[in-house]
Order: sequence, then C-alpha cells, then structure tokens
Amino acid sequence: MKLSHIEHIGIAVSNLENAIKLYETAFGLECYKIEEVAEQKVRTAFFMIGQTKIELLESTDPEGPVGKFIEKRGEGVHHIAFAVEDINGSLSEAEKSGIKLLDSKPRKGADGLDIAFLHPKSTSGVLIELCKKGS
Amino acid sequence: MKLSHIEHIGIAVSNLENAIKLYETAFGLECYKIEEVAEQKVRTAFFMIGQTKIELLESTDPEGPVGKFIEKRGEGVHHIAFAVEDINGSLSEAEKSGIKLLDSKPRKGADGLDIAFLHPKSTSGVLIELCKKGS
Repeated sequence: MKLSHIEHIGIAVSNLENAIKLYETAFGLECYKIEEVAEQKVRTAFFMIGQTKIELLESTDPEGPVGKFIEKRGEGVHHIAFAVEDINGSLSEAEKSGIKLLDSKPRKGADGLDIAFLHPKSTSGVLIELCKKGS
Repeated sequence: MKLSHIEHIGIAVSNLENAIKLYETAFGLECYKIEEVAEQKVRTAFFMIGQTKIELLESTDPEGPVGKFIEKRGEGVHHIAFAVEDINGSLSEAEKSGIKLLDSKPRKGADGLDIAFLHPKSTSGVLIELCKKGS
C-alpha cells in the first residue's frame, strides 16, 4: 500500500476541556474543531502539527471503545492513522500480508474521513487506522 | 513554543526484525537505518511516512525504559516527538506552563537529534519528546 503521511494521532483523555487547555497553553496549538462522533461514543478535539492532526478523544460512555481503553490502560495514545490513497485496496493488501482487520470495509469517521482499523495484535500492539478524505 | 511537525512516533516492539518485516511487507515502507542507542538500552529502526519517522524500539536490557514499558503494558506506542525550533526555550515555556520535565536540558538521542522528554503525568498520559536536529 502507499502511505502518504500520518493523518492523525488519536489520544484518549479523561477530560477534553483540560486536555485542550494543555495543548493550547503549553504547546501553542489552536483547537480548530470539536466534534462528537456518536457511533464511536467520543467527543473529539482537533489540532494541527505540520501534516498531522492531534485528535483528542473523550469518551461519552464508559462502555465505548475509548471509555474501556482508559479504564484498562489510563490516558494515552489510542491509535495512529495512516493516510492512504486507496483504502479498499490497502485493506485487501493488509489482509493478504496476514494482518487481521477490525473493519473489512471503510466506514465514516470524524473530520470527514473514510476509516478502517487494523487489529493491534497484528501490528506490534499499535491500533492502526487507515483513512482517506471522504468524497 | 512553536512545533513545526511530528518528528517521530516511537513504538516499543518485542522483536525488531519481525516488526521491520511488518512495516516493510504490510505497509510498503523502507527501513532506512538501524541504530543502537546504548544510553537508552534500545536498538531502533527508522521508516519515513511523509514528514514523520516511525521509530521502532527494541529493548537491549529488561531494566531499560523500553524493557520496563513492555513488561508493564506490552508492545505499543512508547512516545511522540514534536520537532521544535528552540529546544531550550521550549523546555522553559513548558515548565512555566506547569509541565513537569523529565530532562531539564537537552541530551543526544537517536538519529542525530537533541532531545528532551516531558513527564507523561503532565501531558494526558502521553510521553512527549521535544527534539531538534543537532548542530
């Protein structure tokens, strides 16, 4: 597959407002969007660093994926997203090279992206998302 | 402080050769350097995705920082590095805004960088490195 850049890094946080303040005050970044993704049970806040977004993720439900992540491991990096040109083709390639897919086909994610996750057991413990700007 | 881009993402892996194979085969990336950093008790392998390096980290000593990380949490994202223009100034600014520093002044890291770490308890559970290309 062809990866163009790291689209974003998803960071699980306990309190979105406190984390936004940290990134604004300590790192001098501007939060350009806050978005709730009901399907993922998260509220997200976005910052840009070069080509890459920092996506802060606050759980809206303890049973959601980010709620469970924080319960188990505490705050921290939740996933990394690689921007690909052809998301369906990339998923096929990943599967052929032995990677287990969490999403066999793309679905809608935050910030207008088509997204699909790979299983972290196949990828050195890192939850990796493939994504492409939606059409 | 002024962050220009995400310089690298450090990923703790149990077996460097297996992880290199994954990034080469599944993601089509080229490993351009393998380097041992004795001080950090790691062997590292580098890949480039857009502006950002993936830095795979294999521990050379169970008592080293990456060995302890894997023992406690398993494989996964170990740290994120932000490229800054002025590393000493950025450390002062971080400290002034209430962030606890792990390194009060820069030291030499892998791949010719001057580096300094911030304490993850101050930064939403994420181990953040500030870095600058060494002169």
